[in-house]
Amino acid sequence: MTTEENLKKYQEWLFRRSAYQMALSIIGIDKLTVAPPAGNAYRDARTAYLSGELFSIDTDPEILAVLKELKDAPDIDEDIRKGIQLYYEEAQKRLCIPKEEYVAFEELSNRSYDAWLEAKQKKDYSIFEPYLKEVIEAQKKLYGYRDSDLPLYERMLDDYEPGMRIADYDAFFAAVKERLLPLIARIAEAKQPEDSFLYQNYPIDEQKKFMDELLAYLRFDPSWGYQNETEHPFTSWTCENDCRTTTKYLADNPVSAIFSTVHEVGHATYEHQCDPRYDGMVLSEGISSGMHESQSRLCENYLGRTDAFWAYNYPLLQKHFPSQLAGVSLEAFMKAVNKSSPSLVRTEADELTYPVHILIRYEIEKGLFDGSISTEGLDGVWNAKYREYLGVEAKDPSEGILQDVHWSGGSFGYFPTYALGSAFAAQFMEAMRHDFDVDRALRTNRYDLCMGWLKEHIHRYGCRYPAQEILIKATGRSFDVNVYLDYLEDKYSRLYGLK
Amino acid sequence: MTTEENLKKYQEWLFRRSAYQMALSIIGIDKLTVAPPAGNAYRDARTAYLSGELFSIDTDPEILAVLKELKDAPDIDEDIRKGIQLYYEEAQKRLCIPKEEYVAFEELSNRSYDAWLEAKQKKDYSIFEPYLKEVIEAQKKLYGYRDSDLPLYERMLDDYEPGMRIADYDAFFAAVKERLLPLIARIAEAKQPEDSFLYQNYPIDEQKKFMDELLAYLRFDPSWGYQNETEHPFTSWTCENDCRTTTKYLADNPVSAIFSTVHEVGHATYEHQCDPRYDGMVLSEGISSGMHESQSRLCENYLGRTDAFWAYNYPLLQKHFPSQLAGVSLEAFMKAVNKSSPSLVRTEADELTYPVHILIRYEIEKGLFDGSISTEGLDGVWNAKYREYLGVEAKDPSEGILQDVHWSGGSFGYFPTYALGSAFAAQFMEAMRHDFDVDRALRTNRYDLCMGWLKEHIHRYGCRYPAQEILIKATGRSFDVNVYLDYLEDKYSRLYGLK
Repeated sequence: MTTEENLKKYQEWLFRRSAYQMALSIIGIDKLTVAPPAGNAYRDARTAYLSGELFSIDTDPEILAVLKELKDAPDIDEDIRKGIQLYYEEAQKRLCIPKEEYVAFEELSNRSYDAWLEAKQKKDYSIFEPYLKEVIEAQKKLYGYRDSDLPLYERMLDDYEPGMRIADYDAFFAAVKERLLPLIARIAEAKQPEDSFLYQNYPIDEQKKFMDELLAYLRFDPSWGYQNETEHPFTSWTCENDCRTTTKYLADNPVSAIFSTVHEVGHATYEHQCDPRYDGMVLSEGISSGMHESQSRLCENYLGRTDAFWAYNYPLLQKHFPSQLAGVSLEAFMKAVNKSSPSLVRTEADELTYPVHILIRYEIEKGLFDGSISTEGLDGVWNAKYREYLGVEAKDPSEGILQDVHWSGGSFGYFPTYALGSAFAAQFMEAMRHDFDVDRALRTNRYDLCMGWLKEHIHRYGCRYPAQEILIKATGRSFDVNVYLDYLEDKYSRLYGLK
Repeated sequence: MTTEENLKKYQEWLFRRSAYQMALSIIGIDKLTVAPPAGNAYRDARTAYLSGELFSIDTDPEILAVLKELKDAPDIDEDIRKGIQLYYEEAQKRLCIPKEEYVAFEELSNRSYDAWLEAKQKKDYSIFEPYLKEVIEAQKKLYGYRDSDLPLYERMLDDYEPGMRIADYDAFFAAVKERLLPLIARIAEAKQPEDSFLYQNYPIDEQKKFMDELLAYLRFDPSWGYQNETEHPFTSWTCENDCRTTTKYLADNPVSAIFSTVHEVGHATYEHQCDPRYDGMVLSEGISSGMHESQSRLCENYLGRTDAFWAYNYPLLQKHFPSQLAGVSLEAFMKAVNKSSPSLVRTEADELTYPVHILIRYEIEKGLFDGSISTEGLDGVWNAKYREYLGVEAKDPSEGILQDVHWSGGSFGYFPTYALGSAFAAQFMEAMRHDFDVDRALRTNRYDLCMGWLKEHIHRYGCRYPAQEILIKATGRSFDVNVYLDYLEDKYSRLYGLK
């Protein structure tokens, strides 16, 4: 076939697969937000079937032949070639898996999610444990089919952050341990700021009114974005011009929903600002999990927890909660929202202790796949690591081993990218601050300037370039964990007067 | 093939089609409830593609051969045979349509919905008119393919209420005109009850708290049902054990959301109470639009607007709105919620004038398909009919021609079943009251007894028997419009002291 004929076939195939992808995305959001639980079994089985249909489309031999010809064809647009290469590589990973095993795993992961939710609600790890075990065994088998020299866990790590190996993460977490654990210990003994004013009655209806103003400040536009509520906040990019985020309101703590919103809107903005030429193609997605998380954490911590951000937003918050925040100065508020203290729940953790939560998950995942840790008694292993590194102990598994959804769906190797993303973000932030007066933008309701910088240097590329290349393009140098660790040391030493 | 082999193929096909049906249902609900509008074009195109996939599955020649053999096979369960017959008949209606025209219509109806929404928001019929025209032309063409002796509009009527012909509806609406128009005119001159207390500030947050109690009273269980909010309340049955309803809250009128909820939960309960043996099959759906509407209207009007219903619920409502309802007796409240007065908006119309709203739509639909009415100037035709029959005039098209969503998606022939459903309901109610003390059940928080009666006599059958047969089974006689008209005359004559 001519290149032109091949391109036509490719475009038709792109449209077809994007229809299934959209359907699965909307069904997934529906399940996580509003779907009544008694319908789970019926829906899960059919969702798995549709995933199988997408699997068949993605591994269709006829289209693979087309992709193979096109990826090396001369006279082809380089953007299009890059997309084709990515689809071709992705197909190779799937081709080796028998379709019925793929579909069975999709269904298992949905059932496992339901079991995890029930286990968490009932605070009973034993409900979830058999599913976790089955999911791990299934993942071992599925990843085992892949023609690769990498150890199993490294194959998973590579899917989330291409190029990152166990040795890289080992070095990364060793640096985190070496430089942060002593600092965390020093701060645990330092005088803590007063923050009891954050933990009183903040009616949720009023929080939502503030949130509308905050979403406008963040440029999360209802024409292309919708925020719902879930127990576990997430972002899902359904399609071109359509991003969904969720948050969770706590009646006795207003900042939880606020920072989760700033975080999720960071993810949504990344997807939304990709070059529209890539719409409906793999190129329009974020390049890696670490890069995605760098954008959400940059927004949440490096912008959202600054004096400048709150110089604009704190008076608005005070307007909604005049009695709760009476007499609380901006300075006192900032100290409270930046308080660092070892805690149990990752999603509520402060910026300094956060990477330690990830370190614990990384060590456990490594152990689960090298056979040194098993699912039986894993709640105990979890608790022991929290005691060791953070000196805290879960009262029940809902704030321990059952707190996170990720493992229920077989997402192993994903957590490490959360810490990596925080570190990427430090480097991006340094470059952004070099280019313009970020604080002035935040103080004067010009959050859009920060989003514009991210669009220009990161978002618009989507999957066009590898993460490490984007890092170099945007910051002028390759990844260096010390930028992140320097930032944390500096920020927290100042906050706690340790310098 | 043996019957056993055919049945196996049939079961696999059922599962496959139910997966697409579920996906389309969830995508549809998502679009109507939360999907950001900027994504419409992308989603609509792909939704239409998936509808086409279902079309192909439903008209697959191999499965049609299987259905044809099975529907006349000996030794087959009669329930299964009935389902197969229904699928076979449905396939015949589709087979004659070229797939690309079917897909194009699905996309058109989605685009037309978007245009209708915009037109309604901007109160500008001219935005919607070209779409309406295109939808009508497309429907004429699609229905024209069908091998049928019936006039085009009658084919549509038959799809929504099998067996009902234009002559039947003409007779039905002639009776409505003859007996109700004079009564409506007399009531327009009678003394109206005081109802200003309904139109004051009822904070929506508080309305929602009452709604939770009402949903419990109605036995709408969150394990299988979820209520969302939309501009236009609807119910969608996603799958086994999963019904979604919506309502709309008005800050200056609490009863709008209440009665729309009772109505929609009536639809949801019908679907939910079908025999579980029919799950995932066509048999598990309501038998006809009129029958569906009979269930929602029975709940809304024949149960929900009774003294007994409110004897239990009014104290709860007063608890939530003590100042707004101070000094308003149950009797005064009942007179207010049963007030009859000609109005513009169908969904807010009272029980007595409601069928006249439908009569107007029926006359217009007949005209659109016999060529005596065109889409140009249709807003004027609409307004003239409202003046003639109800003596009211729309200030703008959002409360006139643009008020209803139905025509945007090509649903012609659907409205008449709304009035028919009210009439079916009267007959069911008479039978239910004969069987047990309904008022006592409603007063004592035993709404479940009423739902149990409906389950036993109607819901459990799903599509197993024709509507008219279910009517006879449940009430001992065939349809008689006079039961309905007698009920309305009696109720409103008493309410307005005209007897």
